[in-house]
Amino acid sequence: MQIITSVSDMQAHADALRRAGKRIGFVPTMGFLHAGHLSLMGRARQENDVVVASIFVNPTQFGPKEDLDRYPRDAEGDRQKCESAGVDVLFTPAAAEMYPEKPVVFVAVEGISDILEGAIRPGHFRGVATVVAKLFNIVRPRTAYFGQKDFQQCAVIRLMVAGLNLDVEVVVLPTVREADGLAMSSRNSYLDRSQRQKATCLFRALSAGEELIKSGVREPDKIRQKMRAVLGREKGVEIDYAEIADADRLTPPETLGGRMVLLVAVRIGSTRLIDNLLILC
Amino acid sequence: MQIITSVSDMQAHADALRRAGKRIGFVPTMGFLHAGHLSLMGRARQENDVVVASIFVNPTQFGPKEDLDRYPRDAEGDRQKCESAGVDVLFTPAAAEMYPEKPVVFVAVEGISDILEGAIRPGHFRGVATVVAKLFNIVRPRTAYFGQKDFQQCAVIRLMVAGLNLDVEVVVLPTVREADGLAMSSRNSYLDRSQRQKATCLFRALSAGEELIKSGVREPDKIRQKMRAVLGREKGVEIDYAEIADADRLTPPETLGGRMVLLVAVRIGSTRLIDNLLILC
Repeated sequence: MQIITSVSDMQAHADALRRAGKRIGFVPTMGFLHAGHLSLMGRARQENDVVVASIFVNPTQFGPKEDLDRYPRDAEGDRQKCESAGVDVLFTPAAAEMYPEKPVVFVAVEGISDILEGAIRPGHFRGVATVVAKLFNIVRPRTAYFGQKDFQQCAVIRLMVAGLNLDVEVVVLPTVREADGLAMSSRNSYLDRSQRQKATCLFRALSAGEELIKSGVREPDKIRQKMRAVLGREKGVEIDYAEIADADRLTPPETLGGRMVLLVAVRIGSTRLIDNLLILC
Repeated sequence: MQIITSVSDMQAHADALRRAGKRIGFVPTMGFLHAGHLSLMGRARQENDVVVASIFVNPTQFGPKEDLDRYPRDAEGDRQKCESAGVDVLFTPAAAEMYPEKPVVFVAVEGISDILEGAIRPGHFRGVATVVAKLFNIVRPRTAYFGQKDFQQCAVIRLMVAGLNLDVEVVVLPTVREADGLAMSSRNSYLDRSQRQKATCLFRALSAGEELIKSGVREPDKIRQKMRAVLGREKGVEIDYAEIADADRLTPPETLGGRMVLLVAVRIGSTRLIDNLLILC
């Protein structure tokens, strides 16, 4: 496995690969890799000639009071995991390499960036769309792989790719879960034993919402209330939102139909956790 | 010369050229081509294996009260000029091809987009940066050619390219002028005979400013006043601005030094004209 830290080296390497007709699959991450990331790398390995993974904790997608400074890191563990997952090139630029100057260029995806996660984390999706556009221009993949756990992020990136005519296929793979349903997330490492117990409430709330829909309920408000009730039962869990939305535009539906998504976000202590379930109805 | 109107055809063609190791030079235009455009095509022809020109009057860079609807067009004349200039591929997408949906994705270049032209044309440079990013992703050039007449646009594009890590070299070529100094511009076609006479005031103002600097004057205000005086002498010419700025950041200098640029913008009747001069002092 080759490790590249410079933007121009990565760009030159990607350019040479493309000229040689190689298909590049790309897994952008913020590191502290878990089974969710590894499933993306596994799929990328199956579908491409060359797999590039990146580890970059992107400062511009964190708010001033968020967890940039304490975001978990494990460079050596990540390196080994990438190697075992069959990654060919690990791109790990420093922040000053990605942003040599105070950034003034931003990619904005209007509308979808201001709701749900975007309403709670202003500027977050602008930071995400910008860094993913940069990474796509540096790594030049044919296909990029993302986890469904960050559902809204995936929707933002799909819109960004279409809007900027980036020649990249975006593949979203299912959320990988712990045995008790908790979605894999690097931020789970923040949880103490008791918080870790409570954290199962996200998946339980989503499952309760799904069950209600399967039982024939079609009023969005009833689904929301059900999910909030499950989340609200846990002491020390503060609800940011519990929503049902159109799976493409993430806007709230008047009645249920087609591809819907249940989305929940909570704070447990100082840790924010999100999860979602896709539902066809 | 090949004419391509579809984004996916252009993208596929560019991809094939790059895989074949061909160097693509790109001249993006809004059509109604003049000697300025042709000088860009000539340089692109010298420096590349394949020359792509685009003609696209980009709606998102026009304000609601601007001249989008009456912007001059001459599809057949432009085609012939491109052919004569040695263009290999002419990319002429319809607006619905570039923006199949109401656009929600925008590239913003903060700071520089809000001054001078940007102050008078809010949203203009956001539209420019976005469409140029799109065109670069569609045409995949190694080098793109722009005219210095749109000085601030060139600065915005350079920042956009750096900020998004686009692997494109931006080349800016000198403004081509009529015999009496008027900068070539598609918008000159709006001018009647008397307005066309008056329009030389832009170059006269810039030249007067340059002369003052060459005579040793170093106070920005004196330069501005001189340029405004020349412009103000013409009846029916309204001044939008007459400025001196740092040539890279376009910010006003306290004292003169290094690469400076004189910039003027006026309205003559309903026609807006801009011009500039680079000065080393």
